[in-house]
Amino acid sequence: MKTLAIQETFQRIHQNKFFELFVISIIIFSALVVGLKTYSISPLMLQIISVLDWSISIFFLIEITIRFISEENKKDFFKNGWNIFDTLIVTISLIPIEDSEMAVVGRLIRIFRVLRMVSFIPELRILLTSLIKVMPKLGYIILMLFIIFYIYAAIGSIFFEAINPVLWSNISISMLTLFRIMTFEGWTDIMYETMVVYPLSWIYYLSFIFLTTFAFLNMVIGVVVNVLDEEHREAILKEEEEKHPLTLEDLDRKIELLMAMVEAKKHKE
Amino acid sequence: MKTLAIQETFQRIHQNKFFELFVISIIIFSALVVGLKTYSISPLMLQIISVLDWSISIFFLIEITIRFISEENKKDFFKNGWNIFDTLIVTISLIPIEDSEMAVVGRLIRIFRVLRMVSFIPELRILLTSLIKVMPKLGYIILMLFIIFYIYAAIGSIFFEAINPVLWSNISISMLTLFRIMTFEGWTDIMYETMVVYPLSWIYYLSFIFLTTFAFLNMVIGVVVNVLDEEHREAILKEEEEKHPLTLEDLDRKIELLMAMVEAKKHKE
Amino acid sequence: MKTLAIQETFQRIHQNKFFELFVISIIIFSALVVGLKTYSISPLMLQIISVLDWSISIFFLIEITIRFISEENKKDFFKNGWNIFDTLIVTISLIPIEDSEMAVVGRLIRIFRVLRMVSFIPELRILLTSLIKVMPKLGYIILMLFIIFYIYAAIGSIFFEAINPVLWSNISISMLTLFRIMTFEGWTDIMYETMVVYPLSWIYYLSFIFLTTFAFLNMVIGVVVNVLDEEHREAILKEEEEKHPLTLEDLDRKIELLMAMVEAKKHKE
Amino acid sequence: MKTLAIQETFQRIHQNKFFELFVISIIIFSALVVGLKTYSISPLMLQIISVLDWSISIFFLIEITIRFISEENKKDFFKNGWNIFDTLIVTISLIPIEDSEMAVVGRLIRIFRVLRMVSFIPELRILLTSLIKVMPKLGYIILMLFIIFYIYAAIGSIFFEAINPVLWSNISISMLTLFRIMTFEGWTDIMYETMVVYPLSWIYYLSFIFLTTFAFLNMVIGVVVNVLDEEHREAILKEEEEKHPLTLEDLDRKIELLMAMVEAKKHKE
Repeated sequence: MKTLAIQETFQRIHQNKFFELFVISIIIFSALVVGLKTYSISPLMLQIISVLDWSISIFFLIEITIRFISEENKKDFFKNGWNIFDTLIVTISLIPIEDSEMAVVGRLIRIFRVLRMVSFIPELRILLTSLIKVMPKLGYIILMLFIIFYIYAAIGSIFFEAINPVLWSNISISMLTLFRIMTFEGWTDIMYETMVVYPLSWIYYLSFIFLTTFAFLNMVIGVVVNVLDEEHREAILKEEEEKHPLTLEDLDRKIELLMAMVEAKKHKE
Repeated sequence: MKTLAIQETFQRIHQNKFFELFVISIIIFSALVVGLKTYSISPLMLQIISVLDWSISIFFLIEITIRFISEENKKDFFKNGWNIFDTLIVTISLIPIEDSEMAVVGRLIRIFRVLRMVSFIPELRILLTSLIKVMPKLGYIILMLFIIFYIYAAIGSIFFEAINPVLWSNISISMLTLFRIMTFEGWTDIMYETMVVYPLSWIYYLSFIFLTTFAFLNMVIGVVVNVLDEEHREAILKEEEEKHPLTLEDLDRKIELLMAMVEAKKHKE
Repeated sequence: MKTLAIQETFQRIHQNKFFELFVISIIIFSALVVGLKTYSISPLMLQIISVLDWSISIFFLIEITIRFISEENKKDFFKNGWNIFDTLIVTISLIPIEDSEMAVVGRLIRIFRVLRMVSFIPELRILLTSLIKVMPKLGYIILMLFIIFYIYAAIGSIFFEAINPVLWSNISISMLTLFRIMTFEGWTDIMYETMVVYPLSWIYYLSFIFLTTFAFLNMVIGVVVNVLDEEHREAILKEEEEKHPLTLEDLDRKIELLMAMVEAKKHKE
Repeated sequence: MKTLAIQETFQRIHQNKFFELFVISIIIFSALVVGLKTYSISPLMLQIISVLDWSISIFFLIEITIRFISEENKKDFFKNGWNIFDTLIVTISLIPIEDSEMAVVGRLIRIFRVLRMVSFIPELRILLTSLIKVMPKLGYIILMLFIIFYIYAAIGSIFFEAINPVLWSNISISMLTLFRIMTFEGWTDIMYETMVVYPLSWIYYLSFIFLTTFAFLNMVIGVVVNVLDEEHREAILKEEEEKHPLTLEDLDRKIELLMAMVEAKKHKE
């Protein structure tokens, strides 16, 4: 009975609007601390920040504990990916790291605390989920794009390695160079360089740009059509529900009226 | 009674088509004067421009006065944001500024007079309002984009500050550098520089480009879907109104005809 | 009677499929000649080209004459903008130009003969017309974009002229620089240059990029929505036409059947 | 009888899920071998790769033989473009090439084996087919774009050849330069160079950028509208099928009911 009372109290805290706002402001504050550390600051300031940092970690620990206790079914808590993420970030940031090499990991963990913003605000969580959901639908276009990259990179590293080994020495470096060409960053200099040896190599670059632009375009259109389609289907479903009962009812009413009048006529006869 | 007559006269002036065209031409003329001043011109020309400038200011003062007097409820005049903007621009441009430092402010105010074009042409005003209206709907995507920028900037300034302090010295400079990378402006040079120290740093750049491009794309799609949706909803509403009464009326007509014929048959019997 | 017979004969020639293909191949051939002239060629080749050029001009003259004669109402011929364009191009290319300065004009006219492709193929003509038709609908967004450019150019030439007069010396050069920034071409170098003097000038560049990107996006979306809307409206109109008569006919059939059966019942009684 | 049994056995192998996965993994493995060869590797490794290469070729030969035998109508096998492509790639990769010049061709053929991924996975095959299908619908816009390029290239090589022969010496090099300008790659440097001689040449560049951007935009919109249209048409067809029989049946039911009641009334009389 007692644990249930505590659970209920914690649930009330957890669902409290002010508590929510307070957590968000602490997350924003932790983000600001992360940002502040990138500036060259006085040792005193650094010590203050260190203290703040630990306070934030402890606050987050408390917050997660409250959330965990307020959960009715303890097993469900770790079924939620965001809860696991939160717990991991907080527990790792509590491990004291003295080693200078590991200190970087500690700083990174503190940066990822900014992502708690996403885990805490439902709208951002939905946004991220919907972004991830679209991905598999684009799977085959991304595979196609990768095949195009792979073939062009293989061709590039065969023919152009001797010309500029920095850009074309092996297939992975060639793929990076091709990505650069896809963003149009200094692609003409790369082309002019190879055109000295192979005057027709512009075909290689132009065909690559056309293919990737076209595939990318298809990806964009695919997403747009997909999103619009779902919206459209939902709109149609809603329409159907709203429209049909109405017209059929109207019809019913009309026919009943007709029948009543036919009957009325019969009676008069 | 007299003030009412004046008000009506001024209203008539204010709504006069020729007066409107005259105001627009004066705004365009003031824009030309602003442009002319950026060229190196003779002292005589400068004096002429100065005179023209004052004439424009005085004309605008008169125009606003007319608008103010023609307004029936004086309080409503300052409820309109555009009226406040117009009044501010005109009154500030009337303050004589001799100080050379303040002269820049005076020139800026004269430039913003070009924005009176937006405040005067209703179509431009509607356009701007609709642009601003779309913003909040994109709020969460912009927040997401900002979080991505913030995290990448924090990581960048931790790892790359020692390599190139000009680009990565603190979180705000890093964010500017990341914006530059997002526009693909010389992003490969930045990447090659850090790849000397961290050969795997291409993951940092490519993942950033993918995430921001994807988020930006979602923003664009969001706006398109939003706009199309509203148009669609309006179209459906219109359709419903137009279609239903017609078909039901047709049904009515058919059924009435049927009933009439049934009755006719009855009478014959 | 005789002129009518000639007119009919010419009309038959004009509408002949082979004649059409022949004209198109001559236009393509004239385009190839234009292209060939840009290569450094032998004097003999140059003479051959000159002869070919005159032959093409004379052929085009004949072709237009045929079209003019086959026209039933001679006045209508010059009401069509494309006919005027064709006539102008052909007549000007027939004027013998010896003067070296005017020779450039002669070459330009020969280049514009390639545009006869557009005037001759109906699909291209429709495409161009539809491109031009969309323009006025975008009028206010283009005006808005121009106002943004103008204001930013005025501000830029006031503050940055002293820093780099090549890029910011007056309002027109500043507008060209801003267009360059809009295409992201070396925009960061321009920004870094002014940030030395005005450290906050990144606000100027970023706000400009945001505003123009957003306005441009709205333009694109405006066109898409516009095109989709028209398609949608046409689709709805078609649907209405196809759907309604069908269902009403079905209803008619049903009701007639019903009436026939009611009557049949009556007769039996 | 015996051949039929073999055919059936081979069909069973061919349609076996594990066999399919095995073929895909061999294709991926052959792609990895292609990638590996672009790295500088030890002679021993090179020999191992050579052996692997031949094994892959022989496996592919077996796979195609299985597919060919399992085909009921042997003539149909070569009607499928993908089968021809597979057979060609495999047979050419089996020809032993010793000549160093021809060795490049051998390596290219081995790269194109990666494309077998597309020929083997139906989803990718459908994707490629749909990409190719959209092309002809864009035919006229691509032709228009080409005419714009051709005219601008001709003008460019007349006026700018003397300024920079590397970029403008003849019509084909000018078209490449214009494509570069279209991708915004260093276009301002090209413009500034010609503006020294022709101060108004910015009109040339800006009009070109506007025209091509606009045409490209129309192409994108064309594809989007096209795809959405088809989806819409399909959706409408589906709707019609689903909706109409239902309402007509409902009507039937209503009218039958009505008739039955009318009849019932009659009988009572």
